[in-house]
Amino acid sequence: MNENGLSLTSVRERFLALQTRIVREFERLDGAARFAGEDLSTDGGGLSRPRVLENGKHIEKAAAHFTHSVGRALPPAASERRPELAGHPFQAVAVSCIVHARNPYVPAAHMNLRFFLVEAEPPAWHFGGGFDLTPFYAFEEDVVHWHRNARAVCAAHGPWYDELKANCDAYFFLPHRGEPRGVGGIFFDDWTRGGFEASLAFVDAVGAHFLSGYVPIFERRAGVAWGEREESFMLVRRGRYAEFNLAIDRGTRYGLQSGRRVESVLASLPPRVRWVYDYRPDPGSPEALLTEKFLPARNWLKPVDKSGD
Amino acid sequence: MNENGLSLTSVRERFLALQTRIVREFERLDGAARFAGEDLSTDGGGLSRPRVLENGKHIEKAAAHFTHSVGRALPPAASERRPELAGHPFQAVAVSCIVHARNPYVPAAHMNLRFFLVEAEPPAWHFGGGFDLTPFYAFEEDVVHWHRNARAVCAAHGPWYDELKANCDAYFFLPHRGEPRGVGGIFFDDWTRGGFEASLAFVDAVGAHFLSGYVPIFERRAGVAWGEREESFMLVRRGRYAEFNLAIDRGTRYGLQSGRRVESVLASLPPRVRWVYDYRPDPGSPEALLTEKFLPARNWLKPVDKSGD
Repeated sequence: MNENGLSLTSVRERFLALQTRIVREFERLDGAARFAGEDLSTDGGGLSRPRVLENGKHIEKAAAHFTHSVGRALPPAASERRPELAGHPFQAVAVSCIVHARNPYVPAAHMNLRFFLVEAEPPAWHFGGGFDLTPFYAFEEDVVHWHRNARAVCAAHGPWYDELKANCDAYFFLPHRGEPRGVGGIFFDDWTRGGFEASLAFVDAVGAHFLSGYVPIFERRAGVAWGEREESFMLVRRGRYAEFNLAIDRGTRYGLQSGRRVESVLASLPPRVRWVYDYRPDPGSPEALLTEKFLPARNWLKPVDKSGD
Repeated sequence: MNENGLSLTSVRERFLALQTRIVREFERLDGAARFAGEDLSTDGGGLSRPRVLENGKHIEKAAAHFTHSVGRALPPAASERRPELAGHPFQAVAVSCIVHARNPYVPAAHMNLRFFLVEAEPPAWHFGGGFDLTPFYAFEEDVVHWHRNARAVCAAHGPWYDELKANCDAYFFLPHRGEPRGVGGIFFDDWTRGGFEASLAFVDAVGAHFLSGYVPIFERRAGVAWGEREESFMLVRRGRYAEFNLAIDRGTRYGLQSGRRVESVLASLPPRVRWVYDYRPDPGSPEALLTEKFLPARNWLKPVDKSGD
């Protein structure tokens, strides 16, 4: 901890611990395959720890990456709103996770946490992150559980759920299709609320709640029987996921443009995808239910339900 | 033809005739499946004729689109270099074709021709277009034929092959991978050389040479035996194609942002794609040959070879 109460070491330790927990949890859920990856030391004391599991029994592909990058001088383009920060050393720590399951009844899930520090006087810093869920064949109880869990992690730290849920709905949206990517979750950026310690505690809790949100859904649905029809629909919907990540997502676009390791940036892409020209599910079919009922952004929780879990 | 020697009707007729020829030719090549699509009249006398063939015997997906769009007032963003054109009526006519074959020994191919007219006084207009080839398992004789054919269509109209080949190499490039999309071809924009009639004649010939370039390669390779290994490699390479179209290609990005019919804009996407984390072919393997020998931009034609065909 430095004189400003900031501790990059704390962030790094928490994010690394979260990565380890995620890796263990998904290896347990899969029951067969293991994550693989190497530890890469980078310039100035940075560390990149990509971890990918492929071709598992239940998980077709999962990525759980940790990166700590150290930069000598912040480029002007990265600090347009605060030009006085340009040229200062900076550090970024991030942990992210994406899961593409085999079973079309198991949603894809995504989580990302990040900390950014500019070593100016005084230092500038913020956190960002969140998690969101992308089902194919959705179950209302799963979506309600996902959002209750999201509300719970907010409620323990501040009355932010409605705001962060709205952020998530706005961000994970495909404008060219006028369609949300999935059923949302929470999303935040430029986060400094309550100061460093409180922000880190919140972000750390968001990471833990990614697991308490997703793991029960995974366990509940991984055994549902499915066939070619469901898989085909999942592959088409994964096409939307790839469209979002490649054409829309700011993080991916920034990663590709900034010369980051391309395989880490694109590890979130689905393992298999189909594009079917002018695909439209039959009205009233289980496939149509996704776009008709689940994707349109709405409040999944009753206002009276204050239990938060 | 108007008093400036321009004839939008001529462009429209030639592009529609080319689309018809492409559709017939690929239906013949496939031998089983047919193109489907509807004719959509659009505002102000425009016409959209999307045509897609899916799940053929030899062609997994092909799209051959014609569009004529009519706009009331050119947006300022579309004419930054010539602000005096903003607000004038404009028309755009385009024909495009993309083929994704089943056999990994048959390259994917892409062609696009377009005409843009701003009805100012005097009118402003230009053509653009080109064709490029994306093999998976490449054959030197095919690539040499493709480029000889490209040089031939240029040579008959002007000494432009080297320039248009270099344009193509520069445009169809994935900066995040430091890798060309394929083995190139020709690419041009803002094309007015020799005036309207000469430009239209050149562009029309480019469309015809797309077929004389691609069809013999298709016919030569569609019968080569292939298995899971080759298909798997093709699907991984198609991932690069999807990356280019969604993250890099200006036409696709403009199409998505401008609210054009999304299924037409994205009809160029491969029907099936795989993303394998950190995929690297074994050095010296047939798969490695693509990136080692064929993709790096180079001159495929001997300077002494002036035959042009």
